[in-house]
Amino acid sequence: MSKLSHLDDNGHANMVDIGGKTATVRTATATGCIRMSPEALAAIRDGDAPKGDVLAVARVAAIMAAKKTGELIPLCHPLALDAVTVDFTFLEDGVRATSKVSLTGKTGVEMEAITATSIALLTIYDMVKALDKHMVIEQVFCQQKSGGKSGDWHFSG
Amino acid sequence: MSKLSHLDDNGHANMVDIGGKTATVRTATATGCIRMSPEALAAIRDGDAPKGDVLAVARVAAIMAAKKTGELIPLCHPLALDAVTVDFTFLEDGVRATSKVSLTGKTGVEMEAITATSIALLTIYDMVKALDKHMVIEQVFCQQKSGGKSGDWHFSG
Amino acid sequence: MSKLSHLDDNGHANMVDIGGKTATVRTATATGCIRMSPEALAAIRDGDAPKGDVLAVARVAAIMAAKKTGELIPLCHPLALDAVTVDFTFLEDGVRATSKVSLTGKTGVEMEAITATSIALLTIYDMVKALDKHMVIEQVFCQQKSGGKSGDWHFSG
Amino acid sequence: MSKLSHLDDNGHANMVDIGGKTATVRTATATGCIRMSPEALAAIRDGDAPKGDVLAVARVAAIMAAKKTGELIPLCHPLALDAVTVDFTFLEDGVRATSKVSLTGKTGVEMEAITATSIALLTIYDMVKALDKHMVIEQVFCQQKSGGKSGDWHFSG
Amino acid sequence: MSKLSHLDDNGHANMVDIGGKTATVRTATATGCIRMSPEALAAIRDGDAPKGDVLAVARVAAIMAAKKTGELIPLCHPLALDAVTVDFTFLEDGVRATSKVSLTGKTGVEMEAITATSIALLTIYDMVKALDKHMVIEQVFCQQKSGGKSGDWHFSG
Amino acid sequence: MSKLSHLDDNGHANMVDIGGKTATVRTATATGCIRMSPEALAAIRDGDAPKGDVLAVARVAAIMAAKKTGELIPLCHPLALDAVTVDFTFLEDGVRATSKVSLTGKTGVEMEAITATSIALLTIYDMVKALDKHMVIEQVFCQQKSGGKSGDWHFSG
Repeated sequence: MSKLSHLDDNGHANMVDIGGKTATVRTATATGCIRMSPEALAAIRDGDAPKGDVLAVARVAAIMAAKKTGELIPLCHPLALDAVTVDFTFLEDGVRATSKVSLTGKTGVEMEAITATSIALLTIYDMVKALDKHMVIEQVFCQQKSGGKSGDWHFSG
Repeated sequence: MSKLSHLDDNGHANMVDIGGKTATVRTATATGCIRMSPEALAAIRDGDAPKGDVLAVARVAAIMAAKKTGELIPLCHPLALDAVTVDFTFLEDGVRATSKVSLTGKTGVEMEAITATSIALLTIYDMVKALDKHMVIEQVFCQQKSGGKSGDWHFSG
Repeated sequence: MSKLSHLDDNGHANMVDIGGKTATVRTATATGCIRMSPEALAAIRDGDAPKGDVLAVARVAAIMAAKKTGELIPLCHPLALDAVTVDFTFLEDGVRATSKVSLTGKTGVEMEAITATSIALLTIYDMVKALDKHMVIEQVFCQQKSGGKSGDWHFSG
Repeated sequence: MSKLSHLDDNGHANMVDIGGKTATVRTATATGCIRMSPEALAAIRDGDAPKGDVLAVARVAAIMAAKKTGELIPLCHPLALDAVTVDFTFLEDGVRATSKVSLTGKTGVEMEAITATSIALLTIYDMVKALDKHMVIEQVFCQQKSGGKSGDWHFSG
Repeated sequence: MSKLSHLDDNGHANMVDIGGKTATVRTATATGCIRMSPEALAAIRDGDAPKGDVLAVARVAAIMAAKKTGELIPLCHPLALDAVTVDFTFLEDGVRATSKVSLTGKTGVEMEAITATSIALLTIYDMVKALDKHMVIEQVFCQQKSGGKSGDWHFSG
Repeated sequence: MSKLSHLDDNGHANMVDIGGKTATVRTATATGCIRMSPEALAAIRDGDAPKGDVLAVARVAAIMAAKKTGELIPLCHPLALDAVTVDFTFLEDGVRATSKVSLTGKTGVEMEAITATSIALLTIYDMVKALDKHMVIEQVFCQQKSGGKSGDWHFSG
């Protein structure tokens, strides 16, 4: 029967024991986007030209957040990440952020990837909100993971 | 012409000066939802019965994240929040999180509300991902704000 | 009827609204002690002589913890403390730590004082545990508070 | 002669070198209690019924504090914990918190267990203090540890 | 006679009481530089062209560090900063970082400015160290402060 | 051609992948000094006698900062340090701080050593600034590193 892994038999939260799991190389990729007005999007695009820092700031915030995941999500294990990369692509009506995280360790890094992506989008929101108060964050999900007992997996939307 | 408030004339990031602004009561409400399978949703609902901790954990994570916003979003000011509340409602295919934050201070609390909401959804994701790997976070946005120079505002979707 | 202030009508946790409260000078003092073997106590006492750092380290840890209270105790407000002092006295069979915290603000600082005291005692525990594994932390409580609507209060044991 | 492990020959604090130690499975359990009035205790008990969040909040705070131990206790090593569980039992005049932590690593986890327990008790204190200002935290100690060179150990009170 | 403000009469550290001080607008500016090889400097300069993130990352790190000062420097008060800006200029043999911080509050912000500057330089060090292991951080000091009882002050080298 | 390791081909920041590197014992030592007036220096020296906490506070701050490096320097990996020691020596016109860090892991600890040294110096600055506003931090650099592919290295000034 279905059971939530972070709850014990009394329904109480705990940080599940990964002591018996094998350390393997694990990766996860998560993506998400933020919809905005053409004016706001243009301001970021222009800022992406010679001088602008918008996406650079969001990238740094996302990388730092990946490292902080165990501090933000109560039942996540603290992990010594091997690598974090964050990329942005422009959409017709917004920006997509995609984060890839890897680890040699005993548990997966989906939460690190999806947390990094969320903080990247929130940082863009913060920097652009003076221009557009109607932005919406959408379609944040885990696209792919590899490693561990369950092996390779891709989102099949 | 449109300008991103967090960039100086050279496009460099900075934390904008709020020294000259007036301290007023400010509130903001942000909402967002996470879509999941019926099985996953049932597990949370059951957990919401006498014993389960799922939404309680997500609520605590969200409140703590609201207080950490200035540490997560690089150009946000550190703020001494007056109050944070986080509520959940069950949707047909997921859960909606809504966070309300208030402050007596010199800048708005939209980022605190939307950060709390995002972390609530990420925590649910973490606790349920063993049952459903295809969850998607959607429609995260600021619904309402009050206080400050611009006064009351509601999202007009 | 009695009611826990941090729970709403549905029993859900929230950070209570202090927006309507008046900023006044508030203080709180909390104390606690750690019991240990004569050998362990002597090692700290000797270390308190010309060269030792034990109580100095515990004092720094306690002051830093007072500032972190809002990050550790989920429903505490983040506070801009005015002052923190931590003192130690030797008991016959251990050490007593006493922390005093003050603030000009809208809520009390009992939690900051008691958290500082607890972390002071835990730090002593950590530094002495190689000598005595049977130490016990005892009698940690708030001794006194002043300021706010309820005014002066002393523990009447 | 007895020596405090965290002090060098000049009595100066340092983080002791665990580089040469072997990574083994290590566990530690710590317990402690908070004494309170019957009225306060009843409020928690009632809150433990269908709707209340008190112990759930304390449990989350404790788990998060276990992960933060290396940041709170100055000379503790940062550790990648395998598991953390926190349980509560009702006493006649209060609540007992018991935390168990495990790690595959080069140093013990007593401090993580006792820190988690302390923060659990402080969180209960915070949530109940509106009802009872005379609560006292008592008998916080390490009950058991296993793993490492010294092997199994139990508190012999 | 001269006395260190953070030590009490027994030479013990404490966080000095600012409760009686007046909240005024205060600013501080701190500067510092990092010396490096022509090759390393050229790599940053080139990176400062259309695509590079080096100084953008250092700027974000510095702004975030200014906000964290009260967490890093044990006896600093936690402060709600009004503004932080960080600028870089190229020297013949390195890079100069200059941080300006402002606050409406009861204590000065020199430590915030000098901490931001130091973290900016350390971040550059980190990003360039693959090219030059002989970099040296130099001449980090507070250039100017204003506000508070002592009023305007400039470094007179 | 020279390339900054933390930038990808588009000049974007990322946390470089250390997944394929071998875990070895690595050490690094960094040093730096703070210049001050004879009066300020005397106050620290006196404080170093029976009662004073100045260098003890700086030492604790430095050790804690070494553990926080991955949180302060955006592209540093979070590391489980084996050991940290911090020492001070008196110069004719100031104080020298030297930090040594070691790790069994996949990347070097230069940044941890140099960050610890910088925070030690900043803490001294904070505690002495009431006596001397003209202090300058100087000559902060990495003296030595060992371990990893590049092996032993010493600064050759």
